[in-house]
Amino acid sequence: MSVDLDRRGFVLAAGGAIAASAIGPSALAQTAGRKVGYAIVGLGGYGLGQIIPQFKNCEHSRLVALVSGDPAKAKRVAAQYGVPESGIYNYENYDSIRDNPDIDIVYVCLPVSMHAEYTIRAAKAGKHVLCEKPMALSSKECEAMIAACRQAGKKLMIGYRCHFEPFNLEAIRRARAGEIGKLRYFRSEHGYTAGDPTAWRLKKAMSGGGSIMDIGIYALQAARYMTGEEPVAVYAKETTDRKDPRFREVEDMIEFQLEFPSGVIGSCMSMYSANRNQVLLMGDKGRIELEPATNYSGQRLWVGKGRENEITPPQGPGKNQFAGQLDHLAQCVLENRTPIVPGEEGLRDIRIIEAVYQSAREKRRIALKA
Amino acid sequence: MSVDLDRRGFVLAAGGAIAASAIGPSALAQTAGRKVGYAIVGLGGYGLGQIIPQFKNCEHSRLVALVSGDPAKAKRVAAQYGVPESGIYNYENYDSIRDNPDIDIVYVCLPVSMHAEYTIRAAKAGKHVLCEKPMALSSKECEAMIAACRQAGKKLMIGYRCHFEPFNLEAIRRARAGEIGKLRYFRSEHGYTAGDPTAWRLKKAMSGGGSIMDIGIYALQAARYMTGEEPVAVYAKETTDRKDPRFREVEDMIEFQLEFPSGVIGSCMSMYSANRNQVLLMGDKGRIELEPATNYSGQRLWVGKGRENEITPPQGPGKNQFAGQLDHLAQCVLENRTPIVPGEEGLRDIRIIEAVYQSAREKRRIALKA
Repeated sequence: MSVDLDRRGFVLAAGGAIAASAIGPSALAQTAGRKVGYAIVGLGGYGLGQIIPQFKNCEHSRLVALVSGDPAKAKRVAAQYGVPESGIYNYENYDSIRDNPDIDIVYVCLPVSMHAEYTIRAAKAGKHVLCEKPMALSSKECEAMIAACRQAGKKLMIGYRCHFEPFNLEAIRRARAGEIGKLRYFRSEHGYTAGDPTAWRLKKAMSGGGSIMDIGIYALQAARYMTGEEPVAVYAKETTDRKDPRFREVEDMIEFQLEFPSGVIGSCMSMYSANRNQVLLMGDKGRIELEPATNYSGQRLWVGKGRENEITPPQGPGKNQFAGQLDHLAQCVLENRTPIVPGEEGLRDIRIIEAVYQSAREKRRIALKA
Repeated sequence: MSVDLDRRGFVLAAGGAIAASAIGPSALAQTAGRKVGYAIVGLGGYGLGQIIPQFKNCEHSRLVALVSGDPAKAKRVAAQYGVPESGIYNYENYDSIRDNPDIDIVYVCLPVSMHAEYTIRAAKAGKHVLCEKPMALSSKECEAMIAACRQAGKKLMIGYRCHFEPFNLEAIRRARAGEIGKLRYFRSEHGYTAGDPTAWRLKKAMSGGGSIMDIGIYALQAARYMTGEEPVAVYAKETTDRKDPRFREVEDMIEFQLEFPSGVIGSCMSMYSANRNQVLLMGDKGRIELEPATNYSGQRLWVGKGRENEITPPQGPGKNQFAGQLDHLAQCVLENRTPIVPGEEGLRDIRIIEAVYQSAREKRRIALKA
């Protein structure tokens, strides 16, 4: 076990280090050839478009089941990806996954309002869970999810793929190594232009909130993993054109400032009305910039006084961040380890987001509990 | 009089438009050949290094007097720039400038703590005043300066040179023309690495405060002239290492958020421990970026979705921002017009800075009076 964990438990090992070191020789021998089986719950844009195609890039993970409310779609996807008909489930017979020994992990790729229910049902069915971000509608739901998995003796991981993304890992490594001196300031802007007003992401009952739940959470996550600190207070200001049909129920833009114990200030902007994806760390000796920072691909990284020194990092822990994420939980299952982004990590973000909303509503600084 | 003023009075005319339109044909005829005489008060880095060399680039301004506490330096500079010995003053005989008819305008390039006194004495001596930013130590001082100039019937302008800088003018013009759609978000980071701990800028009694008074004020000014709005509330967070010998008396970093009536959020960072000079305007159809934004020279401007479209603006109102600024007040004197950046503009910034400090101190949002 030589994985280097920093004080927040972020795996700093680059390249194949996680894969190589996470499993000792004896464990590797025991699990040689064994691929952990995933059931994907939800065949929407993310599950179908991003996750399912990644199993071919995995070393320790395989797709064994699908859960969908659309039988024809499920059948088509199953045929395309070699999932047996016996691995096709719907939301009614979902609990019978307990009888399918091929399924080790359930990956919940559903609207946020369904995360808690389908995570808890998976745990009760004796399965480990990978749940997409944001973890749930509320911290109360997150706590219930953690409790259910703990009670069932099952692992719970949140789909924070950037923890497996080489440019982000390299930026963290260089920040921790002191390459920009003492870190003073973190800034991130994350946004995209929301389209269809009928999308579930724009319905509060399904999404739990607007841009911060969906895209601003990347800025919040990055503020925490880049600084390696937990914020002690937040202040936020929301601005939304409520006459815009997209934003009748959820916020468009919300700016939030995070106070960190060391004195680092985190300044984050989340938006549904502009495209933006960047991270800046400013130290007293230079800066680290990522733009795009957290996209599915195409990341760029600069370290120095400006953008004169562009960095190409070593390969991350998987063929890409998606495969790295899938294989990480698979390895945790094989090895009985705790994932680096467990349920508690998702809960922390939701608690901070709740404080951000409270701050915007009450127009005051909200202190966060340690 | 065809100068286009927007609602905040920002001169949007580009190129030579200000010079050409500000003075009608008859006025031009009357003032043909007449150059307005400036006395420079303070032969420090800015007055001597930046301002005095610019008179050769002016059309309507000439250097006629110097005020300095160092007679040898004053004599040397006078000889170099063709100022007669009769135009050399010190801080004791300063008030006798009233007897020098060559002096129309006094340009106060002194530490902030001396701005009010030397502005008021100039007005009492019957001279117009150009005073460097920040205008003074406090809004109370600013009010006294405005009152003194008003009482003397003299003009008062603040040295906000960016209002004469072509890249900034072009950015404003394009933002107002709707090139990035509806403006939603303004962000600016301004900072540099402070050096010598004994510098007057780091002594609170002389500077009035730290980075925001010196460099962060550019972010504040830009937030106002770029949006064309006045903020209605501020929230600020300071972070300073008080053990650093540079920061025993004044702040290092201060982040401040501005709320604008239209819903635009302004996010500004001011710092004395990192080099940064940039402005970003984000609209629902694109963005405008300036980096560096407010340096003495070397500005760059991008308009579009990212940085693919770099803009070279038309020539500004002078050979450069310094000459444009000097000639603007000269023309205002010749033409009896109010400068576009009068004392009231400096007062507005100081009032907002006072609210920023109050917010940081009291850890709460401060509403600004209209």
